[in-house]
Amino acid sequence: MSTYLTAEDIPDLARGAAILGTGGGGDPYIGQLMALAAIETNGPVELVAPSELPDDAQIIPVAMMGAPTVMIEKLPSVDQFVVAVNSLGQYLGVKPTHLACMESGGVNSTIPIVAAAQMKLPLIDGDFMGRAFPELQMVTATLFGLQATPMSITDDKGNAGIISTVTNLWAERLARSLTVEMGASSIVSLYTMRGWQAKQAAVAGTLSQCVRIGRTVREARAAHSDPVAAVAGVLGGRLIHTGKVTDIMRRTTAGFARGEATLTGFDANEGTQLTLNFQNEHIIATRDGVVLSTAPDLLICLDIDTGEPITTESLRFGHRVGLIAAPADDRWHTPEGIALVGPRYFGYDIDPVRWNAVEL
Amino acid sequence: MSTYLTAEDIPDLARGAAILGTGGGGDPYIGQLMALAAIETNGPVELVAPSELPDDAQIIPVAMMGAPTVMIEKLPSVDQFVVAVNSLGQYLGVKPTHLACMESGGVNSTIPIVAAAQMKLPLIDGDFMGRAFPELQMVTATLFGLQATPMSITDDKGNAGIISTVTNLWAERLARSLTVEMGASSIVSLYTMRGWQAKQAAVAGTLSQCVRIGRTVREARAAHSDPVAAVAGVLGGRLIHTGKVTDIMRRTTAGFARGEATLTGFDANEGTQLTLNFQNEHIIATRDGVVLSTAPDLLICLDIDTGEPITTESLRFGHRVGLIAAPADDRWHTPEGIALVGPRYFGYDIDPVRWNAVEL
Repeated sequence: MSTYLTAEDIPDLARGAAILGTGGGGDPYIGQLMALAAIETNGPVELVAPSELPDDAQIIPVAMMGAPTVMIEKLPSVDQFVVAVNSLGQYLGVKPTHLACMESGGVNSTIPIVAAAQMKLPLIDGDFMGRAFPELQMVTATLFGLQATPMSITDDKGNAGIISTVTNLWAERLARSLTVEMGASSIVSLYTMRGWQAKQAAVAGTLSQCVRIGRTVREARAAHSDPVAAVAGVLGGRLIHTGKVTDIMRRTTAGFARGEATLTGFDANEGTQLTLNFQNEHIIATRDGVVLSTAPDLLICLDIDTGEPITTESLRFGHRVGLIAAPADDRWHTPEGIALVGPRYFGYDIDPVRWNAVEL
Repeated sequence: MSTYLTAEDIPDLARGAAILGTGGGGDPYIGQLMALAAIETNGPVELVAPSELPDDAQIIPVAMMGAPTVMIEKLPSVDQFVVAVNSLGQYLGVKPTHLACMESGGVNSTIPIVAAAQMKLPLIDGDFMGRAFPELQMVTATLFGLQATPMSITDDKGNAGIISTVTNLWAERLARSLTVEMGASSIVSLYTMRGWQAKQAAVAGTLSQCVRIGRTVREARAAHSDPVAAVAGVLGGRLIHTGKVTDIMRRTTAGFARGEATLTGFDANEGTQLTLNFQNEHIIATRDGVVLSTAPDLLICLDIDTGEPITTESLRFGHRVGLIAAPADDRWHTPEGIALVGPRYFGYDIDPVRWNAVEL
């Protein structure tokens, strides 16, 4: 049995990817347009479950690196995705049998669809975060000892590089500095792996999960039921705050979109103040001094009325939002996972707080 | 007839290279130690005049990139030079027949000697600046339309990259950002070329010229004659100032050692103040508001008593120096040359001033 992503799936998938993007990953509308155009031109994209991969499958993931705030203004081209994949394949002397997403979030769920359509290759139904994270070593692949490099990096001007590093953190550092110089966004191919490795390391099913999440929002809205509650349900999470954006501070530094938003509570949360810290993605939610949830668990901002995801760069004063906390893949809650993506890595000297740890 | 660089040549060569380094290029003593050790281990290095190169010779230059202030504290290893050359050769699928210097100045004259000794390859007697300049596109090779990339870049930790760029200026920008992230110094191989191209583009004879300059200092000192005047003579330049360092400001930013020194005049220059601006290399000398000489011509600081070159990072309060201005290779004085290395490129809104333009 084969599963294909068709043009009808893309709007749901893009919305679901923006929700798993937890504030990062860029404008879902841009990703949607690119993926629709690619499928309309080249036909549906085959999705392959990690468990169905041949052990010797040759997988080349592709992703955007940089600040999503910049990508809104500087659209990458399809050619750039193909160049990133092919230049790495040529460097390694391998031909990819499958492409893959490194993260399920925003444009990094849709860029591999575009590349797969263009290159007529199947795409893995899964990723290596199960959500979005801001740095390239923050993947389950790192937990399984896979190497980020050799990796390729390309920009919109025709510049390109191949990097080989001693650790995945060094890959992040060197690729980040190139990305900043390239204009704060780049396209990268990295973490080439075999099928047997992807079977172990992938977070399975996340692209179909994106479609399911996006459809949930659409159907809840059509049924005039609460789309925010529906999303919390499909994610296995819960609504932790309802609030209006009363302050937002963001800056694009060192290739990241960093900042914090204040969500002044309404309805059940009347009279409270919630602070949401982000670095591309939402990292920590603190209400009146109490940490409600932190990375690695998911923090998702939705428009309270429509259930549409709100990325950090589109968060505006006056926005009325519902904030959902939901569980991350279990592997992120191991000591190694927490070391990679827990609050301390992001510079907050606190222990991680699970999505359901605090009594509301 | 073959020419060889032997261990006896190295102290003269290192001193001469530091003089052509015009303040940049790093401590000549470090380069001297590395080259001596390499020749003692592997034997003399053959020097080949550009005019004697076979047209199909495959030349791979090698150089250090970054702030010389850092290299004093973080010695590169011989292995790193060989890795830089070989990784570029392997990427391009070529074997080098000759190595080359990109600049004749400081360690970038001696690093290729070390690599040539280690790899048992001949070295071109020449370079592509005829002096030292701070950025990698600032070479006669650029004037002849040669491409800096594909280039390799390596660090002391084992990280490496291959960069391909649309212009030589982009190669500078991307390699500089990697160099900064790598700890402000790296080893690069770039501007691979054929023999016929090197014949056109090289500044011929600069390594033998380094030996000649260094010997001139040594012999003048042995003869108790004026070593500063002797250096001015061998360079075809002139002494433009004698002064004591009364102020020095330097900072290592964006991978460069930038700053300025004040040389308060003595002897014939009593009562004057000369400002020397540098960016790795000395760029502009201004005395009491009058610009005496600028890049691309050479500005060289020598200890007034010993004739020893003084690099910008070793310039100290109280140092008594003679400042020499000397002519650069003619090709730097074309409009294209001035656009690449004239004062305006370095951020000074003035026309270039030749070494002998101002009546002293």
